[in-house]
Order: sequence, then structure tokens, then C-alpha cells
Amino acid sequence: MIDESRMRVKELKRRIRNVTLHTEDYYRIAYGYDATGIRGSCVGVAFPESECDLALIIKNANSLGIPIIPRGAGTGFSGGSVPVDGSLVVSTEKIRRVLSFDREMNEVEVESGIVNGKLQDYLKPFGFFYPPDPASYKVSTIGGNIAENAGGPRAYKYGVTRRYVRSLKWITSTGEYLESQQGGPTAFLIGSEGTLGFIYSARLAVFPIPKARKTFLLGASGDGDTMNLASDLLHSGFRPSVLEFIDSKTIRCVAEYLGILSILENRGDSSYLFLEVEGTEIETDEQQRHLNDYCECHGLTLTTAEKEEDREILWELRRSISPSLARRSITKVNEDIALPLGKLPEAVVRIHELARDKRLDCYIFGHCGDGNLHINIMTDRRNKKEMERAGEFVENLFLYVIAAGGTLSGEHGVGITKRPFLSLAFSPGELRLQEKIKGVIDPGSTFNPGKYFDNIMEEVG
Amino acid sequence: MIDESRMRVKELKRRIRNVTLHTEDYYRIAYGYDATGIRGSCVGVAFPESECDLALIIKNANSLGIPIIPRGAGTGFSGGSVPVDGSLVVSTEKIRRVLSFDREMNEVEVESGIVNGKLQDYLKPFGFFYPPDPASYKVSTIGGNIAENAGGPRAYKYGVTRRYVRSLKWITSTGEYLESQQGGPTAFLIGSEGTLGFIYSARLAVFPIPKARKTFLLGASGDGDTMNLASDLLHSGFRPSVLEFIDSKTIRCVAEYLGILSILENRGDSSYLFLEVEGTEIETDEQQRHLNDYCECHGLTLTTAEKEEDREILWELRRSISPSLARRSITKVNEDIALPLGKLPEAVVRIHELARDKRLDCYIFGHCGDGNLHINIMTDRRNKKEMERAGEFVENLFLYVIAAGGTLSGEHGVGITKRPFLSLAFSPGELRLQEKIKGVIDPGSTFNPGKYFDNIMEEVG
Repeated sequence: MIDESRMRVKELKRRIRNVTLHTEDYYRIAYGYDATGIRGSCVGVAFPESECDLALIIKNANSLGIPIIPRGAGTGFSGGSVPVDGSLVVSTEKIRRVLSFDREMNEVEVESGIVNGKLQDYLKPFGFFYPPDPASYKVSTIGGNIAENAGGPRAYKYGVTRRYVRSLKWITSTGEYLESQQGGPTAFLIGSEGTLGFIYSARLAVFPIPKARKTFLLGASGDGDTMNLASDLLHSGFRPSVLEFIDSKTIRCVAEYLGILSILENRGDSSYLFLEVEGTEIETDEQQRHLNDYCECHGLTLTTAEKEEDREILWELRRSISPSLARRSITKVNEDIALPLGKLPEAVVRIHELARDKRLDCYIFGHCGDGNLHINIMTDRRNKKEMERAGEFVENLFLYVIAAGGTLSGEHGVGITKRPFLSLAFSPGELRLQEKIKGVIDPGSTFNPGKYFDNIMEEVG
Repeated sequence: MIDESRMRVKELKRRIRNVTLHTEDYYRIAYGYDATGIRGSCVGVAFPESECDLALIIKNANSLGIPIIPRGAGTGFSGGSVPVDGSLVVSTEKIRRVLSFDREMNEVEVESGIVNGKLQDYLKPFGFFYPPDPASYKVSTIGGNIAENAGGPRAYKYGVTRRYVRSLKWITSTGEYLESQQGGPTAFLIGSEGTLGFIYSARLAVFPIPKARKTFLLGASGDGDTMNLASDLLHSGFRPSVLEFIDSKTIRCVAEYLGILSILENRGDSSYLFLEVEGTEIETDEQQRHLNDYCECHGLTLTTAEKEEDREILWELRRSISPSLARRSITKVNEDIALPLGKLPEAVVRIHELARDKRLDCYIFGHCGDGNLHINIMTDRRNKKEMERAGEFVENLFLYVIAAGGTLSGEHGVGITKRPFLSLAFSPGELRLQEKIKGVIDPGSTFNPGKYFDNIMEEVG
């Protein structure tokens, strides 16, 4: 920590005496990275306990020229919560209350630090749920979900976070406290990756839990064929609430992790669709019949989970994919792209080819229903040559995705890792526009400097 | 037309020689108003036929200081397309092609001047439809729908326009041509009411037409009771795709208009829910059974339309509401508010009380499923005292709606008519922010000056 930063944070501590602010090394290290493994360095970590604490921290940090890094659970995959030098991490860990729940209005108001899974636990006894369900939902926070406009397996039916935010209370870089309704400034705060303002609380739309749910694992042959199968199934009139793809390498990896590899040996299929239907019992029965007929007609093997405990086993398999891949290598390069559904059969084949070209070990899975695929490359950061090849692969991947009409990020955001590729996705005019908007909302770049589109024109020229 | 404006438009005409630009009085009058009846005055009306024409008009009008009023079909209810003095109306009438349709990608790309109904006609033979269906869909354009973020009866199930816009091609006030994806600048162009940029074309998500649809008219007693019924029906597990409310005065008005008043005489009910279910045949049958059981149990009268021609009759009734009300008085004050569903039973009673307080004739109907009500006051603009009372009613209405947690506009926009009430819905900080954003995207207020939040701080102080 350089001396000037040390003095500034000392002065900040003096000014906001009643707010918890840790400057010890172990705090600065523990809050210095996110799920990318990228490490940054901060001058301290603050733990506001109310909107007043929050406004006080922001106002004073701003006036002292200390950048603020908003932080939920730090589960992001693009470096969005990694601190820059001399910055203050502001954690939402202690602002995590449910403020109100109104059954008639199908609405809950929560502080931004509440964990998505805790919100689901709260709603369940009332018979309600909150649709967005990122794979990280057991640890990631609603504030982080909003900042990244998170999706999840249910996004195929329910759409992403944006659809569920009715209003936000947030704090500007000057410490001004604003409440914005859907359609106002809320439209750009959602998905702004902590670069425009600090979200204190949100009013969210919630829904009654469907009466019946059934979960399926459908095996097919090659990866491209499985994607074609997904399209064909939808055209046949099958209407799942969840439609996920697991490629042949990924299913082996997760099966090995769970110790159930032997089950796969006996099957002729190789890659899989993970499916769920929901609704009334009559409706789910009808969808199940439709799927059974389809599988019989096409000679496909279907695993069905109707009971809650069986469904939980299949979901465990789905949710273990990321942890199983994380164990497979020292450094996991994790990209997340989105393409129109019709392009996916070609895309999975092409992406594996691109990986083979660079002699890389590649795994593909994700929310194929809404065109969002996760692409994981197993590497070892100590192997410089391999990391270079991985970088080249990522560039080729993005070039391919943009040319095919897709986007650089389905749900993981731009953060630090995708900044170098922004000019592939946005024209100079568009980047200039986004930078101007950042400029009027957060003129001093107090929030999350150097992330997303902040100061991007300097970088892309 | 003052001399200076005349000279400017003459110079513009010289510069953009190949673009149709009419300055005759009858053009200036015909394009001088919208569905509010408010009249404005423009210097001319331009009819671009391509994106190049459009860029040329905007660039030159901007450099000559001529404000631009983007105009679709002029069906707006808030004065959004009413020209201000000295401005140029730019009509999208001649940019209305379908640019591409991709069945695999569930996507259509259209120019902004295409009429919503024409797009539906185009999609139907392919078995597809575009969900947003404002009551004006037979005349209003996709560009106007996007600018107002239009809804419609189907919005209860499908959501509003924002959900269906995948990307926009648009032109800035300096004539720069940009393509923006979902989540970029698109987020604020949608619903910006023509104040930020000129939309040339849009890539829209479209959906396969459901296999079966059934339509119902459900009669209940008082207006408040009918709203309670709507909530109760939803809680019972009934899941309509359309859920509309028609109050007791409105149903009589539209029945009289259609010459079917005698049918109502024989019924004991007074206000109505207009319902539709869709899905597979098994699903719609199940929903119908559910609704029949519910009505039998509660002693309610249900009219069911299963055949296409019978459904069309019920829809004709629904769509004739606005025309029937328009015929009822010389001046129709038409407000559109949104409230949480749970607040509606109280709201319909309270709104009728507010109207009675001011001795006004009030009709309420609308998309109660998503909390969006249309409130119509029958007046005569020649009766100054009555118009004053109508103005007081509108103010009381908005005060009530904001206090109850609602918004000033469900789908009609702010335009001119709701500008005086913006400070009820937005804090000064929020208005300042919106004005700043207008300032960076359209620094000279070239687009639709004096509308929505443009220069609003001067007005609200």
C-alpha cells in the first residue's frame, strides 16, 4: 500500500468512525479477488449496515478520491469485483434483510446483500419463488445478480433478472440517495456491473411455486446432434421450463466427480439435454407423455425424475458441473457467450474445432434454451505457452460468436476479462455513447474504475 | 409560419433534394396532431425511404437548427408526436419493409414504419406471431410501439415491447448510424418517446402461434368485486394469457355502440372480466374446466368462445371500447396508470369517487392482469369549467396513484400531457439524471424538444 493511499484511508476512517472498515492485510487479501482468480489490491474493506452508512462511505470516499468497488459474494466470472489499486471494497454482507413481502402484490423488497438462496428460503413457506437462479444462487447476492443481470437455468422460461426488478434504491457517487422505478435509470443500473451507482435495495416481482415439476435427462449422440434435437423438440410442441445442454466431455467429468461414471458406461448416448417441465399436474403429465412419445419414436434414452428427491439428484448433477470442472485443472478459462438458438448446432462443433486448433481441452455446457453457452478451457497458468494459446482461442471464439450474430457475454458480464474484446461487439460510436453516459452518472469514475466501458475509448482508440 | 423557419426549411429542401419533403398547409395540418387532439405546428413533413434518406434529413436539419419530430401513425395518447413550432415532422410511412425473417432464430427484422398488424399478417402464414398487441395494432407502427414501449392485452402473459427487441439500428442527432444490441443503448431508446434518437429498424423476437385458444367473458357484480374476483381467480390456479377488466359503465357504452345492449339486460352481472387461455388443447381444456367449476361454485355467468369466429366477436367487443368511448363525448380525457394488482379493487372504487367529486363522467377498463388501467373522462373542451374540473381530477388521480405505489403511465407515455406531473413520480435527483442523459445523447435537443424529460428541470424547478 503506497503512503498516499494509506493516508487517505486513515482520513476516511476518521470521518466515518461508526462504520466498520478493516485495513488489515488478511481483509485486503480475502476481498482482493473473485471467481476468475484475478487478484487486485485494495486499501480496505468497509461493511455498511444501513443505507445511511452506505451514503456516508460513498460521499466521503468520493471526496477523498478513493475509488469504490461494490462487492456482493465475489462469485463473478469476469473480474467485476476485483479491486483496483488504492480502492475501497464496500461489501454488502451486512445489508441483507428482507424489508417487506406483499403476497397480494407478488412482491418482495430486499437489501442488496441478501443471498439469492436465502431469499428463496424465505419465500418458500409462503408458496412463492424468485425466478432468476444463477448456478451460484446458494452464495451469490441479489445485488450482484442485478449488477450482472444474472440468468440461470430457469431464464429459458422466465427471462433474466431485468424482468423482475420493479424498483431500485441506489446511491450516486456524490452520496445522493435515489429511488428509481422500472424503466427510469433502473434500465441502465441493471447490468451496469457496479460502474454507475451502488444498489442499496430492490423491489422484486416473485411468483407462486408451480404445483408440479418433472425433471428429465435425455441422452443423444454427438454434440451437434443434441443441439439439433433441442430445436426439433421445441418445434414438436414440447415446452420445457428448463432446457440445458451438457456436452459429452462435460457429462463424463461431472459423473466422475460424483462417482457415477459406471452409469454412463451402459448407455449408447454421449451428450445430454437436461430438461424440466412445470405447471399443473395435467399439464406436466401431458408434457411428459409428449416427451416419452418423442423419445420412443426417435430411439432416445430418457431418465425421468418425478419425486422431489429424484429431481434433487438430477439437479445435483447439473449444479456440480462447475465445481467438477474447477477440480479438473489448475486454471479454468471460463467464457460465456450467447447465440441465437438456431446457430447452436453449428456452434458447438465449431467451438470444439477452435479449441482443437490450439491443442486445448474444452468443455461446453449451458442454457441452450436461451442460446447461452459456457465454454471452459482447462489450463495451467504456470504453462505460459498454453495460456497464450488459450488467449488466442478466446479471441477466435469471440470473433466467431460476433460474426454469427451473438454476444460476448450471456450472463457473466464484461468486467476486466472481456474489456479487450468490447470493440468487437460495439462500434466506436456506441462505445463513445456508453462512456458519455458513465461520464454524466459517475463523472469522477468513483465506482469500479477500469471496468466494463469505463475509459474504454482510451484503450480501443 | 414565421419567416426564419420558412427560410431554414427552404435551405433544408435544397440540401436534401432527393427526399420527399412537403411544406403545403394540408400536410402541415394533417401531421400536426395525434390521438390526444392536441394541435402543434410544423414547417414541413419529410418522407424518407431508406436509412440513407433518414441520416441525411437528420444531419442537415440538425445543422440548420430545425428540431425533428419522429412520427409513426400518430396514434399516441400523450402528445409525443405533436410537433413544436418550427419543427420538421419525419414520418416513417415509407420505411416499412420486412427486412428478413428467420424461423430457426425466431426472429424478424423490420423497418420502423411497418404497422404492427401488417407484421402479424406477414408472420401468420409461417405460424408465428409478435406478442405486443396495443389496441391500436391495426394502425400503429413498430417504431412507435418501441418508442412508447407499448403493451396490450397479451402483455399480461408476454410482457411489453422491451422484451422482444433484440437490436435496434438508429440514427443519432448528428446523423451517425448505430446498431445497438439488447442491453446496450437499446435499453434507454425503448420507451424514450422519440427524444433520444430516430429508430430505423429493429430485430424482434417472434413466437409460434399456440395450438389452441379460448376466450371468455365473465360477469360479476360491482367494479371492486370484479377486481377482487380477478385476484381470487389467479390464486385459485387459473392462468389466463389475457386478463382484462371492463367496468359497468364501459360495458354499457360499448354494447350500445355495437347495438347489443339488449343482451346485457337479461344478465344480473354488471362489470366484466375478459379472459383468454392458450396452449395445447389439453391445457386449454383444463383451464376451461377450472374456470367452469369456479363460476359454478361462485354463481357467476360465463360466456365462452371456442370457435375462431366466436372469439373474433368477443375480441371485437374488447377492441370497440376505445372507439365507442370516443363517440360518447366531444373531448375524451384519456389517462393510463399502472398499479400493483393487489391495489386494483380499492383503486377502481376510489377513482370513480374522485371523478364523482368533480362531477365528471368516468369510464375504467384495461389490462388489469398487469395492473394497467385506462381511465376515460367524458368532457367537452368548449365547457371551460368542466375542463378545469377534469384537470383537477387528473391531478388527484396521479397523486392517489403515486401514493399507492403506482406509475403515471402504463403504456401511453409521458409526452406533453404528463410532463406537468413528472415531479410527482420522480425525485429532482432522478429528473436531473434523466436530463443529463438526454444532454449527452442529444445535446442540441434536436429530437422531440419539450417532450418527456427534455428541459424538465426548468419547468419543475
